Amino acid sequence: MFSTDDLCSLRWDPVSEKVEVIDQTLLPHALRWCHLDSLQAFCHAISTMQVRGAPLIGITAAFGLAHALSEDASDEHLARAAATLLATRPTAVNLRWALEEIRVAVRHLAPAERAGAALEKACALREEDIANCERIGDNGLQLLRALPTGDRLNVMTHCNAGWLAAIQWGTALAPVYKAHAAGLPVHVWVSETRPRNQGTNLTAWELQRAGVPCTIVADNSCGQLMRQGRVDCVIVGSDRTAANGDVCNKVGTYLKALAAQASSIPFYVALPESTIDWDCPDGEQIPIEERDAAEVLSIAGLDAGGELLEVNLAAAHSQALNPAFDVTPSWLVQSLVTEHGNFAASEEGLQKLRAVATGA
Amino acid sequence: MFSTDDLCSLRWDPVSEKVEVIDQTLLPHALRWCHLDSLQAFCHAISTMQVRGAPLIGITAAFGLAHALSEDASDEHLARAAATLLATRPTAVNLRWALEEIRVAVRHLAPAERAGAALEKACALREEDIANCERIGDNGLQLLRALPTGDRLNVMTHCNAGWLAAIQWGTALAPVYKAHAAGLPVHVWVSETRPRNQGTNLTAWELQRAGVPCTIVADNSCGQLMRQGRVDCVIVGSDRTAANGDVCNKVGTYLKALAAQASSIPFYVALPESTIDWDCPDGEQIPIEERDAAEVLSIAGLDAGGELLEVNLAAAHSQALNPAFDVTPSWLVQSLVTEHGNFAASEEGLQKLRAVATGA
Repeated sequence: MFSTDDLCSLRWDPVSEKVEVIDQTLLPHALRWCHLDSLQAFCHAISTMQVRGAPLIGITAAFGLAHALSEDASDEHLARAAATLLATRPTAVNLRWALEEIRVAVRHLAPAERAGAALEKACALREEDIANCERIGDNGLQLLRALPTGDRLNVMTHCNAGWLAAIQWGTALAPVYKAHAAGLPVHVWVSETRPRNQGTNLTAWELQRAGVPCTIVADNSCGQLMRQGRVDCVIVGSDRTAANGDVCNKVGTYLKALAAQASSIPFYVALPESTIDWDCPDGEQIPIEERDAAEVLSIAGLDAGGELLEVNLAAAHSQALNPAFDVTPSWLVQSLVTEHGNFAASEEGLQKLRAVATGA
Repeated sequence: MFSTDDLCSLRWDPVSEKVEVIDQTLLPHALRWCHLDSLQAFCHAISTMQVRGAPLIGITAAFGLAHALSEDASDEHLARAAATLLATRPTAVNLRWALEEIRVAVRHLAPAERAGAALEKACALREEDIANCERIGDNGLQLLRALPTGDRLNVMTHCNAGWLAAIQWGTALAPVYKAHAAGLPVHVWVSETRPRNQGTNLTAWELQRAGVPCTIVADNSCGQLMRQGRVDCVIVGSDRTAANGDVCNKVGTYLKALAAQASSIPFYVALPESTIDWDCPDGEQIPIEERDAAEVLSIAGLDAGGELLEVNLAAAHSQALNPAFDVTPSWLVQSLVTEHGNFAASEEGLQKLRAVATGA
């Protein structure tokens, strides 16, 4: 189903060498492709969150660095452009990783060869991301096929870990797309994911675009739906996975994991190996970013005239706190779904993953 | 702290016989009192949710029926006015109860005496509600005093069960107001309570007005705050309590109860005896109202010019589901806080409550 460029967050035309990304800040209200044709445009796309999602940020930065080298392939410009791109989202792990991949690929080359090699590497990273996500989809599909379900296979997800967060397929949504393509009657409960509403804005939009039936629900109703037997499994992504299998993901993930456990519903976390932080022994060590209170106190939407605007929800001078992530302890996670296979969310499970990944 | 009419949802002036209510549909953005001076005005206030919260709906209806009798005290008009008021919110238990209280108080009287007796009864019901809520506050305060806390006593609540939902004090917030008045360093985590945002719109507003420190958080972040040790207890209200102690309350309550249990944080439910449904053996029997999907797909707020307007959050043709309540099983509830004392959330606990209530 991802054979066309129609369901793709970043497209690359080999003839024109044009890089285009969907401006995700306008979703779900408008689909606009942005042509990234300068280092500044790449940086702007990342810093203003036109592109977001760890894999997509990394790939965008890789193409951005390749573009910078096509203008000036000197050592100085390479270092300066990489630093500029890195500064757009300083905490994004994949951003640093992708820039380093490009740097390593070109540093020993003569300047004249660098732009071509960087572009080749960026394209390779893009293809690799797509392939990894597709493998996550295949591995997750095995789990979905094994579930006892009724007329519908009801999958609940949180935030956005779909093709908009990667290039194609996504992580948490890859098994859903695979199931849909295989003819399984899959339906997705999309929790809106306050305060930034990535569920409503991104996940529901991309599922609709791919023709997968879905229903938006308030985050609050997820426990009740599980109690009522209307959820067969939960699949979410991971921003960072500790070496013991604890999962740091968008705030609200933990509440769904608790509710799934209470109703004996499997809770799966889909992630590429790159999100595993081997140096982090457990989730308690992961600092939780607290974002701007304004994200809780105001929200954007379309007014009656179709204009996108921001409205204030709370009384003047209200205080708000906005932790962006939470930690789901590993004992609530049924399985980690990765490009290398499905593993227990435990230190032992992750060691097995490492053995498979390194071919040990 | 409730000695003035300043913190009161429905005020009654014995000289002018004027009934006024806060128009809660305008909160938190504007405080406007509505003078209810016709049966139509009373019905409109209830049906459009200018007044909401089970106790407040009941008292408003009682004054409405008294007003109707002041215009025409015939049997026919009594029956017709009661039916008209009842139809405004057909599922509200307290509405039916309050109308019946008035009807019983006047039916054997001569028409000339009915209006006065009805008004007297409505005033008595109002005073009784205030007294019951204050007793809930005193009983809950004992529990708060017993908590081991640090510099701050951090209470988390959900939805609105404060003085805006009753006349004064409220149910879940009554212990908070008592603690604040007693000089305890109480601070309230207000979960915004999507989709209708009663936390942001009502609870944060009424706490601020009463001078109690509070912080609004997305519903999603409540589990993380508990994991971080930033919550000392959770107190919520109840829309309906089953005879085994299961609690039906605003959707999202159950998720907080699960998270509280996982972090060994006491989870209290404050309720007047009138919310107990003795005929309902357990929470599984309680039908869950599913409200309009539009509540999930759009939201109201103030634009930059200070105008209140509704914005669409989702893509066109999005589907949403909106269960309004959920059921929290009794084993997650530490204590039921009532006007008769604090009781275990169990069949045995509720039987003890009944014995105290009936003086058995």
